Amino acid sequence: MSHPENPNNDHLIFSKGHASPLLYAMLKAAGVISDAELLSYRRFGSPLQGHPVPTLPWVDVATGSLGQGLPVGVGIALSGKYLEKAPYRVWVLLGDSEMSEGSIWEAFDHARHTKLGNLIAILDMNRLGQRGQTPLGWDSAAYAARARAFGWRALEIDGHDPAAISGAYAEALGASDAPALIVARTVKGKGVSLVEDKDGWHGKALDEAQCAKAIEELGGMRDIVIEPEAPAPGEPAPRPTAGPLRLPVYERSTAVATRKAYGDALKALGAARAELVAVDAEVNNSTFAEEFAKAHPDRYFEMFISEQQMVAAAVGLSVRRWSPFASTFAAFLTRAHDFLRMAAVSRADIRVCGSHAGVSIGEDGPSQMGLEDLAMMRAVHGSTVLYPCCANQAARLVAAMADQKGIVYLRTTREKTPILYDATEAFPIGGSKVLRETPHDRVTIIAAGITVHEALKAHAELEASGLSARVLDAYGIKPIDAAGIRAAVQATAGNAVVVEDHWAEGGLGDAVLEALAGEEPVVARVIHLAVREMPGSGTPAELLRAAGLDASSIAGAAKRLLSGDARRAR
Amino acid sequence: MSHPENPNNDHLIFSKGHASPLLYAMLKAAGVISDAELLSYRRFGSPLQGHPVPTLPWVDVATGSLGQGLPVGVGIALSGKYLEKAPYRVWVLLGDSEMSEGSIWEAFDHARHTKLGNLIAILDMNRLGQRGQTPLGWDSAAYAARARAFGWRALEIDGHDPAAISGAYAEALGASDAPALIVARTVKGKGVSLVEDKDGWHGKALDEAQCAKAIEELGGMRDIVIEPEAPAPGEPAPRPTAGPLRLPVYERSTAVATRKAYGDALKALGAARAELVAVDAEVNNSTFAEEFAKAHPDRYFEMFISEQQMVAAAVGLSVRRWSPFASTFAAFLTRAHDFLRMAAVSRADIRVCGSHAGVSIGEDGPSQMGLEDLAMMRAVHGSTVLYPCCANQAARLVAAMADQKGIVYLRTTREKTPILYDATEAFPIGGSKVLRETPHDRVTIIAAGITVHEALKAHAELEASGLSARVLDAYGIKPIDAAGIRAAVQATAGNAVVVEDHWAEGGLGDAVLEALAGEEPVVARVIHLAVREMPGSGTPAELLRAAGLDASSIAGAAKRLLSGDARRAR
Repeated sequence: MSHPENPNNDHLIFSKGHASPLLYAMLKAAGVISDAELLSYRRFGSPLQGHPVPTLPWVDVATGSLGQGLPVGVGIALSGKYLEKAPYRVWVLLGDSEMSEGSIWEAFDHARHTKLGNLIAILDMNRLGQRGQTPLGWDSAAYAARARAFGWRALEIDGHDPAAISGAYAEALGASDAPALIVARTVKGKGVSLVEDKDGWHGKALDEAQCAKAIEELGGMRDIVIEPEAPAPGEPAPRPTAGPLRLPVYERSTAVATRKAYGDALKALGAARAELVAVDAEVNNSTFAEEFAKAHPDRYFEMFISEQQMVAAAVGLSVRRWSPFASTFAAFLTRAHDFLRMAAVSRADIRVCGSHAGVSIGEDGPSQMGLEDLAMMRAVHGSTVLYPCCANQAARLVAAMADQKGIVYLRTTREKTPILYDATEAFPIGGSKVLRETPHDRVTIIAAGITVHEALKAHAELEASGLSARVLDAYGIKPIDAAGIRAAVQATAGNAVVVEDHWAEGGLGDAVLEALAGEEPVVARVIHLAVREMPGSGTPAELLRAAGLDASSIAGAAKRLLSGDARRAR
Repeated sequence: MSHPENPNNDHLIFSKGHASPLLYAMLKAAGVISDAELLSYRRFGSPLQGHPVPTLPWVDVATGSLGQGLPVGVGIALSGKYLEKAPYRVWVLLGDSEMSEGSIWEAFDHARHTKLGNLIAILDMNRLGQRGQTPLGWDSAAYAARARAFGWRALEIDGHDPAAISGAYAEALGASDAPALIVARTVKGKGVSLVEDKDGWHGKALDEAQCAKAIEELGGMRDIVIEPEAPAPGEPAPRPTAGPLRLPVYERSTAVATRKAYGDALKALGAARAELVAVDAEVNNSTFAEEFAKAHPDRYFEMFISEQQMVAAAVGLSVRRWSPFASTFAAFLTRAHDFLRMAAVSRADIRVCGSHAGVSIGEDGPSQMGLEDLAMMRAVHGSTVLYPCCANQAARLVAAMADQKGIVYLRTTREKTPILYDATEAFPIGGSKVLRETPHDRVTIIAAGITVHEALKAHAELEASGLSARVLDAYGIKPIDAAGIRAAVQATAGNAVVVEDHWAEGGLGDAVLEALAGEEPVVARVIHLAVREMPGSGTPAELLRAAGLDASSIAGAAKRLLSGDARRAR
């Protein structure tokens, strides 16, 4: 316990994070936290929060959103079995209420498929949820049957019988390719007559008198001390030597989808960095994570269509200090929103790629279009949000992701787009690029991703009408290049058109308004072109036009702004 | 088929939405769509989109995000069995890849628990996902074992044998309290040698020559006509007479949590409107949906801790024209983000309440704090987002929700807050309220929910310093009251402090900037107070102060803005 950094340590995740008092009491009994620390529970500034967070070195990940601990445990166990080939076990304490969360069954399915015999889950089957009985109550056999049907070993025990517990642990530790579930029948509040097996006490504290009586009923004050067995000290597994980074290079005259560049760059990055690992939700031939999978099969995990488990696996892999990249359609990342939110609470460093963003995917229709991913990812604490418009730019940004802390998001496009930048161009995080500029520009067009190409066409159209426009590629959505955007808009007399293939709320438009606002605002007249009606099927060009995101819509907006200028000047 | 409005019709949901060509071919064979319509498939403007959407009257809900059709089917079946007591069956076509989605198992669990013998799922077990074999391949027995462990009936058949299919349907239609899964072993591309059981053809069309050969191999051109048996014409089930609406009334001198008002108002609304139905994810004693559950137990469904299934059930209930209200912690609604997104594609009318918003929940810590819900809900197409600060206001907004189309969201607060408005005050959607106003106000404080109370305290603090501030309660986050906000900010010389208990991105701050921006912008100096660091545990007051959202932070920001004015004036 005094060496939480020992890589041979077993992992213990309280998936039922609300059992945090038990976790902290165990740490106290093990002598690694003090009475004073224990009494700081839930107080401001204490690392002993209401639900466990990794501000304590024995806590791998934040829990408290139910159903997340087991899928994260799968990620840690994948690392132990396949990447590190390490002896540690992963233990997960499950609540019975959270067995209703689908993510638990994603984890059951995946742990079987990947033969995670190093994963042991203990189900605290106490029958009572927050507001009444769980769907299965004390039906231990039903839980065991489900676990077995999902290919797990299952043991049913009396959770208050130390010998039974010990026996079950020994059995679970036996060599097997199947993960183990120990269904422990327990009584909530066992031994305290006031609350034992009673509904209505969830999350409620006893008053002083009740507390005194409870302690008496439990056998009086005790200072329990445990000495956990420590594993042999270990060193982090050596990683194979990395090679030089040789990012893909795309020629100016070609058109390449940024999603393809993601795959190519990820493959290159994998060759250069041994700590890189990729996961994908059964669409790697669409996201192009397959390029990495083919080149580095030992560091690729197919997560099938379970986006929650995919993000949880990335978080688990990051616990073991791998650098995980997770990819699926941007639209389907919404499935993992709660996991992304909690990954931020866990201070995890994970990289996420969402492909098929926007109406520009075309015929497949709105269910496949990522139109809210920028809003979702911007509102993840400490996140970075990147949106390339060109394959060379995408490749450089993928490389930059690997060095960026926190939750880092890359948005890619389905369609092939012309190469706009040389492969040598640098794209710092938090930057932007001015693609068209003259000293007499009268309007700034701010675009990102697919709309950069429409903006460039609009620029040409405006130029033909004798109107000079500045074009800014806001590839960094968060942090946004506030200085660059302010300078451009100021240089064009405050006229700006922002155009994004995303709903009008929460994306580039809002980021630009934030950049322009503040205590010293840039006075700007802004037309915001975004998706405002529900799209259907169609060609990418038809859908961009229908949403008002195509070149002529942009040029039209710019002209409208400038005619407003003229009106005001009269 | 020619009476899609007949309430006795069975429902058929293509959970594997990518099988849309089969659905449209069936509709063609049934004679309700023409050859010309069929050939408009995936073309711009066609109702025959790449994935089914309810622009066709035989399609209940949009699918295409896998794992959603079955949970929505659960909602329709709940209505049939418990609310309508109607004879219809709900059929769901599942793909094998989507069996990896946890939401499928939420549905399996819930359908068993609620004894939905009127629900029949057909699993098209063709072995191949988008990029290779599924985890279980053709292991029909494994699927059947899982279904049985979840309390379903399970049948294994050859999916290409009409007699076996017919027999399985007959068996599934037999009276039972258990839902039925038919595991149909199929071969992808059966009968077409080029693609039969071959990987790499997912979502790819044949060219003309390949197509001609395929038709030949399948037995040549046929014009299949089917005459589906029509159920007896039915009338929508009569609903019990509704009563007058008697919303709860809270006295000015008291403090009541808006979440409590949600429960009270929902109960009252339930008495007034027979079409109201409520669902909650096992936290109804926290969201106060329990008030409705106790008063109207026949119209309340406990969904346990499965937020995806909860929202899907609401969508399913809306298909049968109920008015569903779904509630859980705001933080955990992120779990259902993809379902909320798809509900908008489905044009569903559902009402959602997220409780325990913001750092002001206190000790439980960040896992329980809804800090991204405004960003998420604003970026749902056609959504309405409401955020009351007072119990009387909350009650009126709950009543307004019932008449609002689309996805309607109410954000509630854990803590008790003082009553600010009389119960008779009206709160139109899209409105705001000016709570403090004089002709010589120099700054507008824009707040919503819990921060309104801090803003009022800041107002008093500023007044004591001789500074007059306007206070605006932006209870309507989307649509935002652009006119009201613009007028207030203009009246205070462009000085504004926006304060919200939410991450800085995507919430009230962005909505306010959008309201002020445009082609005729209001020139404003805005300080935006929002949550910018990861919170921990603490008292609500400590956490509001630490996040810089308390009264003195607001007053400080206002003073800073005004000293900036003074600086500029020098």
